[in-house]
Amino acid sequence: DEFDGPSIKTDIPGPRSKELLRELNSLSTTHEVQFFCNYEESKGNYLVDVDGNVFLDIFMQISSLPLGYNHPALLKVLNDPANLSTLVNRPALGNLPPADFPLRVQNSLIAVAPKGLTNVKTMACGSCSNENAYKAIFMWYMTKQRGGAPPSPEELETCMYNKSPGAPDLTLMSFTGAFHGRTLGCLATTHSKAIHKLDIPSLDWPIAPFPQLKYPLEEHEAENRAEERRCLDQVHALFREYTSAGRPVCGVVVEPVQAEGGDNHASPEFFRELRAITKEYGAAFLVDEVQTGVGVTGSWWAHDLWQLDDPPDIVTFAKKMLGGGYFHTEEFRANSGYRIFNTWLGEPSKLAMCEAVVKTVQEENLLENVRQAGSVLLDGLKHLQTKYPTQLENARGLGTFIAIDCKGGDAHRNKILTDLKRKGIQSGGCGERTIRCRPALIFQPHHAEMVVNAMDEVLAEQA
Amino acid sequence: DEFDGPSIKTDIPGPRSKELLRELNSLSTTHEVQFFCNYEESKGNYLVDVDGNVFLDIFMQISSLPLGYNHPALLKVLNDPANLSTLVNRPALGNLPPADFPLRVQNSLIAVAPKGLTNVKTMACGSCSNENAYKAIFMWYMTKQRGGAPPSPEELETCMYNKSPGAPDLTLMSFTGAFHGRTLGCLATTHSKAIHKLDIPSLDWPIAPFPQLKYPLEEHEAENRAEERRCLDQVHALFREYTSAGRPVCGVVVEPVQAEGGDNHASPEFFRELRAITKEYGAAFLVDEVQTGVGVTGSWWAHDLWQLDDPPDIVTFAKKMLGGGYFHTEEFRANSGYRIFNTWLGEPSKLAMCEAVVKTVQEENLLENVRQAGSVLLDGLKHLQTKYPTQLENARGLGTFIAIDCKGGDAHRNKILTDLKRKGIQSGGCGERTIRCRPALIFQPHHAEMVVNAMDEVLAEQA
Ligand code: FES
Repeated sequence: DEFDGPSIKTDIPGPRSKELLRELNSLSTTHEVQFFCNYEESKGNYLVDVDGNVFLDIFMQISSLPLGYNHPALLKVLNDPANLSTLVNRPALGNLPPADFPLRVQNSLIAVAPKGLTNVKTMACGSCSNENAYKAIFMWYMTKQRGGAPPSPEELETCMYNKSPGAPDLTLMSFTGAFHGRTLGCLATTHSKAIHKLDIPSLDWPIAPFPQLKYPLEEHEAENRAEERRCLDQVHALFREYTSAGRPVCGVVVEPVQAEGGDNHASPEFFRELRAITKEYGAAFLVDEVQTGVGVTGSWWAHDLWQLDDPPDIVTFAKKMLGGGYFHTEEFRANSGYRIFNTWLGEPSKLAMCEAVVKTVQEENLLENVRQAGSVLLDGLKHLQTKYPTQLENARGLGTFIAIDCKGGDAHRNKILTDLKRKGIQSGGCGERTIRCRPALIFQPHHAEMVVNAMDEVLAEQA
Repeated sequence: DEFDGPSIKTDIPGPRSKELLRELNSLSTTHEVQFFCNYEESKGNYLVDVDGNVFLDIFMQISSLPLGYNHPALLKVLNDPANLSTLVNRPALGNLPPADFPLRVQNSLIAVAPKGLTNVKTMACGSCSNENAYKAIFMWYMTKQRGGAPPSPEELETCMYNKSPGAPDLTLMSFTGAFHGRTLGCLATTHSKAIHKLDIPSLDWPIAPFPQLKYPLEEHEAENRAEERRCLDQVHALFREYTSAGRPVCGVVVEPVQAEGGDNHASPEFFRELRAITKEYGAAFLVDEVQTGVGVTGSWWAHDLWQLDDPPDIVTFAKKMLGGGYFHTEEFRANSGYRIFNTWLGEPSKLAMCEAVVKTVQEENLLENVRQAGSVLLDGLKHLQTKYPTQLENARGLGTFIAIDCKGGDAHRNKILTDLKRKGIQSGGCGERTIRCRPALIFQPHHAEMVVNAMDEVLAEQA
């Protein structure tokens, strides 16, 4: 009961969108608005705008809708009178949880907990998930340093004034091209676009190069291995450099695929060795699965594909989980109250929805669907890059987490995105010249074919 | 249709709460859990727990519920089928807003915008509201510095590595005792409790002393004026010190009443002069109304009471507004896209609820109710501090935003809070030895009398 396909009737944005844009612009900035939507009429993989245009949506609200629009399983949760009090009375979840909170956590988050990570802390978005994971790492590190002793009076006093030793000069390593959020702590580890960071004071933390692999992978094995080696050597060097400068590196944060940064992949071997290096230096290993999690790679978590012997210490999530938080090992439980805390700590109604997502993915075998639809899409894009070798290269992906680069750079990429929109395909960009596909888990092989056909038409017009 | 009064049947926490605590503790830390709640049965000013105990709640989920539990106006919003698609399809609000977004913003946020602040940016919680307000201040400052010129290639390059000049060494002034949130940027301006800050690396930003006034105010006018003068002189000194060290102070952030820090008040004159000082140094003035906003002081915004000639540049909100964000002047609009941005930027369903809150406050004249109930409560507490002069002092407040100090310090305060809970009053602490009242806007004079009577009994038992 979706639409049969996209249908575009007006310019994008259409006249009604333009009118609403003017209204909104008098109250708030609107630089990023594409068009206004009719969410009531949107269905499954199809987004409807206020001018009656229907788009096949392969971007799904910046990769944040797991089951597309108005999925019956989610409508059922919100229509269930038993959930009404959960929706209307948002609690201070840390202090006064609802009766069903343990069971809800069990059925939603713990039901899909990464192997080896038995604990979870709920948060509200990707940024507070990462911010609090960073804090958990710093606290863990200092607790180890103290060897069981309580903090000193000097530590308790100096921290109040942002000074060492109470606010110690600890660091966290991130990678070039990374995106972990935009609040100040997260932003210190984000290095995807200048416009996100310009003018904002930051922290001098180590930044390692992320591998820049060549595609197709099978034709560049030796080169790519050398590139990953170069990056891992730099990780070693930064650990030594910062530690000898008295600025311990307490952890490393990494995305399984750098999403905002341009869909940059690295091999499972790279991540396995990165995990080993963090162990070697006594640092925590934090995997940010805010965009890669929840089945989009064909596994529930992208890092499942690395087959680690040692699980990560912390895995953060948000977006398609519908709320945020982080999984962690026993070792990373806060050692006393109010150290990892805020008023809301997420929201029980999001857990109720997450529970329905987890159940639907299992019942409808959606991971298998993702693998099938993803393979049709990736094969189609590979075919297009052969057909249009002056326009496209580097088709790559896992599951439906797929991207391709535009040879003509930023302008070329944006032209293709605009033309796709005119043909009723709502997609998105990342990095400098990349088109990324981030459909919902209900995106099927026949949708993939429509995307490939539309792109074929767009590319033919450019050629 | 509330309860007639509190009713306590078991120990707090009761046996069912203890059982759930054990369950939850196997999945997540639980240091801060007080007891588990039955939100379905909770009503108005009364919170019901899973053991059937009924509390008169004057803390309202850390001051975050505007209309108490299960208010009909909010139930109506959530039961309205027209809102279902708003609840189920959370959009990337910056890119693809729903059709009713401009009208919703108008009827919820702009309808109560502080005088002179015509723009608003929606966010999801107090922390991202403050983090983004800080970023807006730094961007505004650097845009002024550039005098219309675009950023230099060097700035664009260095910011990617957290280095100056792209990530400049700018600072933001805050006050001792302040609380502005717990993400790293917010935490650099929070100075209420060591346990919030210990072990977390921070930024060397200026921290001015916040006035410590003596009560009753009318008996200590000269002393208090001198104390405020001392603090303002320090503000001047810090502006000069940091600026001459090449670390410009771009803004000052302040709460109208320091809430977590112990309900510390300052006079309208203090804030008026603080505003003038920020102007003098070309810095922004940010008022954090996350806890003081939404009518609790008897005015919609606490800073209304200062009668500023020059409005603040930015006012942040969250908690009782049900979502977060910040109001700002035209000058503080971001100058290009994706500088102030994140995936969700709040949530339209929270605006729908906020709209109902705004309407209910107006229709039911709740600001007047707050003033009346607050005056009964404050008078009652003043009477108690006269009756128990060895136990209580410094009763103070605006509207129902009321606090009183316990002479026996932390342990004494916690004993009173526990005893109050046993008598069915759910309240909270702040600062080192303060009890704070943060009831909903529907808290009435007869509820205030119950609180005073219960406290009288508790104090008599201690005496
Ligand atoms: S920082 Fe995550 S919701 Fe505000």
